[in-house]
Amino acid sequence: MIFYSNWRSLAAYRVRVALAMKQIPHEVVTIDMLGGEHQGAAFTAVNPQGVIPALRTSDGQVLVQSLAILEYLEEIRPTPALLPPDPAGRARVRGLALIHAADSHPLLVPRVRAHLQKDAGLDDAAVQRWVDRALHSGLDAIEKLLAHSPETGQFCHGDQPTMADITLTSHLLAMGFFRCDASAYPTANRIAQNCERLEAFSNSHPLKQPGAPAQ
Amino acid sequence: MIFYSNWRSLAAYRVRVALAMKQIPHEVVTIDMLGGEHQGAAFTAVNPQGVIPALRTSDGQVLVQSLAILEYLEEIRPTPALLPPDPAGRARVRGLALIHAADSHPLLVPRVRAHLQKDAGLDDAAVQRWVDRALHSGLDAIEKLLAHSPETGQFCHGDQPTMADITLTSHLLAMGFFRCDASAYPTANRIAQNCERLEAFSNSHPLKQPGAPAQ
Repeated sequence: MIFYSNWRSLAAYRVRVALAMKQIPHEVVTIDMLGGEHQGAAFTAVNPQGVIPALRTSDGQVLVQSLAILEYLEEIRPTPALLPPDPAGRARVRGLALIHAADSHPLLVPRVRAHLQKDAGLDDAAVQRWVDRALHSGLDAIEKLLAHSPETGQFCHGDQPTMADITLTSHLLAMGFFRCDASAYPTANRIAQNCERLEAFSNSHPLKQPGAPAQ
Repeated sequence: MIFYSNWRSLAAYRVRVALAMKQIPHEVVTIDMLGGEHQGAAFTAVNPQGVIPALRTSDGQVLVQSLAILEYLEEIRPTPALLPPDPAGRARVRGLALIHAADSHPLLVPRVRAHLQKDAGLDDAAVQRWVDRALHSGLDAIEKLLAHSPETGQFCHGDQPTMADITLTSHLLAMGFFRCDASAYPTANRIAQNCERLEAFSNSHPLKQPGAPAQ
């Protein structure tokens, strides 16, 4: 398997954690996002959308979109499970994951921020307000869903980490990168601390990857 | 089952098609989005994120996020299938679905367009450029993935409609709403025409739902 990655991509982070949790052997190919390599001919031949991550399976098929890749890894390597066994529980985990991955995070990826600045003419303060709003509105919903459910345990769903924990830590990493105050979300923070104690999460931190800056 | 819906929500459209394809009995509760009902106390007690759709299962659990709901419906009612049987095929379908649902569509939901206009101060032309870019960049990737794959058939993946067809038609509906020219995407259009011949798709069109305007 070949994992096309970059230290700064949070979508790549999600795949990295899942590969680590499931201990799936793979080769990492780092795509130079700052240098625009993801939009060059070589990489768009791999992923026509020109975004990170992508995963080339051992059969040679290229998979795109982080959550689709997580589902694939779950299906080919079910243990440890990233989803609970019951349909309603699985829907709860996927719903939590999608609040981050399909509502908040799409608003703050580099290509969207570049568009806000270059085409829409927003200044740095306006972009920061935009990012703050995207992250706080998503985490506000996630916190309520976590805090009010008896299904929340040491992790988002019970006492084992799931896809929802991968996306929750992705969300909190984004809040750190953009210096958003995340202190008002006690359940989310408690769970994220439990995740950080696991090597699959802590070793997958963006700043521990090749090419990352010191801080 | 209770389906919290609104004619204009494309995320609700996706769930509506799946419920129709699988012929799952349900009650529709229409939430008045233009009147702000989705953000009121009654509905945020159902879905803390205050967005449409939500699905209350026959066990009383509330599920959120359209793709999580589609996966739930697939698990409780596997026939007709919205996903192919093989993991790589499932990942392909989910990847196509997520390009729409997690990259393009999040950029043009009403709350984001309101933020662009009210907080960021974009005029109508700048918002239109923003929407155009979100829709064209997503459909460009989808078209390439469809056109270049032997797995594409009468529908996005083979000759039976899947989640990817639900999101593809959702994407093309958005292009129609926002008057984006979709003529440069022949594979997407051919497949969408095949979808429109199916009652589950044609009867689920937003403009055929309660509360919709005449055109």
